[in-house]
Amino acid sequence: MKLAVLGSNKLVTTTDAILTEIFAGVRPDEVIILAEEEPKKPFNELKNVLSVVGLNAEIKAKVLGEGVKSWRENIPSVEADVADVTPGRKYMAYAVLAYSKTREIRYAYLKEEQKGYKIFGYVPFDKIKLLEMRSGNEVQLDPPKTKRGLERKVKLSTDSLNALINIYSLLGEVTIRYDQNEMKKKDLSKQNFYDLSNEEQMCLTRSGFFKFEREKDVMQEAMGDSFFFADTNIYIKIGDRLRDIAYNRASGMRLLSSRAVYNELIEHTKNTQRDNSVIMFHLGMSTYRRLHQPPLTSEIRGQGDIPLIFEAKKLKAELPNNLVIITQDKRVSSSSSSQGVKSIYVENPSPSMNGNIGEFLYCLSFYKNIDIVVKGERMAELHNEVLSDNFTNKLSQIKTINDEYNYPKFLSELEKFLMPSEH
Amino acid sequence: MKLAVLGSNKLVTTTDAILTEIFAGVRPDEVIILAEEEPKKPFNELKNVLSVVGLNAEIKAKVLGEGVKSWRENIPSVEADVADVTPGRKYMAYAVLAYSKTREIRYAYLKEEQKGYKIFGYVPFDKIKLLEMRSGNEVQLDPPKTKRGLERKVKLSTDSLNALINIYSLLGEVTIRYDQNEMKKKDLSKQNFYDLSNEEQMCLTRSGFFKFEREKDVMQEAMGDSFFFADTNIYIKIGDRLRDIAYNRASGMRLLSSRAVYNELIEHTKNTQRDNSVIMFHLGMSTYRRLHQPPLTSEIRGQGDIPLIFEAKKLKAELPNNLVIITQDKRVSSSSSSQGVKSIYVENPSPSMNGNIGEFLYCLSFYKNIDIVVKGERMAELHNEVLSDNFTNKLSQIKTINDEYNYPKFLSELEKFLMPSEH
Repeated sequence: MKLAVLGSNKLVTTTDAILTEIFAGVRPDEVIILAEEEPKKPFNELKNVLSVVGLNAEIKAKVLGEGVKSWRENIPSVEADVADVTPGRKYMAYAVLAYSKTREIRYAYLKEEQKGYKIFGYVPFDKIKLLEMRSGNEVQLDPPKTKRGLERKVKLSTDSLNALINIYSLLGEVTIRYDQNEMKKKDLSKQNFYDLSNEEQMCLTRSGFFKFEREKDVMQEAMGDSFFFADTNIYIKIGDRLRDIAYNRASGMRLLSSRAVYNELIEHTKNTQRDNSVIMFHLGMSTYRRLHQPPLTSEIRGQGDIPLIFEAKKLKAELPNNLVIITQDKRVSSSSSSQGVKSIYVENPSPSMNGNIGEFLYCLSFYKNIDIVVKGERMAELHNEVLSDNFTNKLSQIKTINDEYNYPKFLSELEKFLMPSEH
Repeated sequence: MKLAVLGSNKLVTTTDAILTEIFAGVRPDEVIILAEEEPKKPFNELKNVLSVVGLNAEIKAKVLGEGVKSWRENIPSVEADVADVTPGRKYMAYAVLAYSKTREIRYAYLKEEQKGYKIFGYVPFDKIKLLEMRSGNEVQLDPPKTKRGLERKVKLSTDSLNALINIYSLLGEVTIRYDQNEMKKKDLSKQNFYDLSNEEQMCLTRSGFFKFEREKDVMQEAMGDSFFFADTNIYIKIGDRLRDIAYNRASGMRLLSSRAVYNELIEHTKNTQRDNSVIMFHLGMSTYRRLHQPPLTSEIRGQGDIPLIFEAKKLKAELPNNLVIITQDKRVSSSSSSQGVKSIYVENPSPSMNGNIGEFLYCLSFYKNIDIVVKGERMAELHNEVLSDNFTNKLSQIKTINDEYNYPKFLSELEKFLMPSEH
């Protein structure tokens, strides 16, 4: 069976289109990428990904040149059973629709187009409509099994963990199981927050299943061009979400790196003992490092609250806009206010619909053995050791249990294809 | 005459499509934006832009809903003389092509698609092919005159200056004239560099008509994940291009802010005397501020070379990767090397094809009165005063001479429509 897909200058969109068709029941022995010019990256390396779902397909590019005329002339000679016109330029799609003999021409419609640039599966499948263009009818998905006997232990990025949950969801209801708990993704934000352990609370706020009430005020301040310092606790509890909260559309991220906070994080992560309490500081520090360039050498020698406020006062003098401290500590908040530095005291976590399940699983698997369960059957388990790689590259260690559906391996091969430098 | 244009979630692409059609001879009294949903920003404010080229057009959105089926049903009822399907989603373009009665359906093909998100005119018109989709034939451009008697003095961003030169080019050959010089854009990099004044040299290297030989080595280092300090001269001579040179695809901009450099730039820009020598420090400082968050309070009190190297040594100790000093000063280079800090000594400017004419005009107009000349006729003149607005927002002061072609006013209204917050 032959599958034709339009080529795009974005590797990920063409790859997503091929995989979407495979997850919609197409089992190609030949994949033809119709392109304006030779693809920069050879697509035959995608064979490793397809082989995980038991396909042995030739993948080749067919260069049709540039422009309406050239495509109109060349399209009739392309033979395929299914063509996917989701990637690529408009005139290319039009040429296929108007001049090809292919019976089925399909297009994956995703309302929030910009989300289409993530790894296959990252967008929940109920947000995508795969349409047959001539009839306008929707095509149903039909996920393939994987080959058995493949590697079961892999590491995945948080984006891929999200994709994994979405792909498993095609098989049936997915639940997360750890300790005595078992719940669906949408139940995560329905828990009684104050009944949970510190780790669960932290992972829920880092992943955004709970958000602090005054995060909105931080966003408001950011729109008004303020700069921010966040105290150590904020790096731990809000994590990478800080990037989006302390963000201004015109001028970018407004969070400045505090030396006092850096000192505190360094102090706590120096500890090389086997002790779970260090994990939250590693998580905080990895957020700090992702959000900031390393801090300048600074006269701030101390760590913690008093040096943080001192540092804020010094820096304020040189800033064209206001500087606001974000804190979870009432004393810091009142002390900084009394010294003339505005602060936002962040409290009252409340449930949110936009939690990131990949972030949650990544975070909690440092503390718990987590099972991913589909229709009552254990599919994979997650547990993260305290390894520098897991913090700096935000990787989760996952092990497949049911190897008829070894989608972790599938996603790991896909990551290697899309982002070879990180593997 | 009715013009229909597909609506996109990106304001600029729909706007560009409307203006491209107007510059291809369409003179609509009604513009219909065919959209999935009501546009977030009301397009009727675009009337001010169209009125500059003498058009009094109704601009309204027609909401056709989402999906192939809905568009197929609704498209036949849309009446238009010309439809432009450049913006919007693929299925929308297909629906117009397959089901509308419109005679002329056009599509502006731009190979480097991502450049399409800039202001109208930013992409040279010879890089765009406006195609009639049914025939595949190319449509020729026919730029409109502007209404006379409009405001002649406006301020434009550097992107708009680029657009201005491109739009003037539709009328005939454009030259830049100042002092005794008159030359075409492509002649800028053909000059004998060492015969030029300091200001001309600086503006040519800032705008990239000349690039330093070892800029390539900086790019290479950045790919290898090194961090950088740049000395004061580099902020002045390379300017905003530093962002792209000290850049790593995976980890972003690798240039760190040096306190010693900041101190030096502050020292020189404190001077409030009317003196041309301060301009280059303002240009350097404005680059510094665009590239960096403000620097932390730091123990580095001094300014210039010795504190810079001292600062680099201190910072190196805390960085996970190497730190390299970029300098134009041989002594800094050898002194830092002897202290164990790697340096790249940047010299030998050589001509480059990718200069940015907007950047060049912006820079040089602080020093010179520049005329923009089309086929021997003076169209506009540029001269920048030493105003904070001109540095921080990178604006150029321009005055129209021939007000039959008051394209500066046209672009200034267009900027107001696209980026109201900056006006």
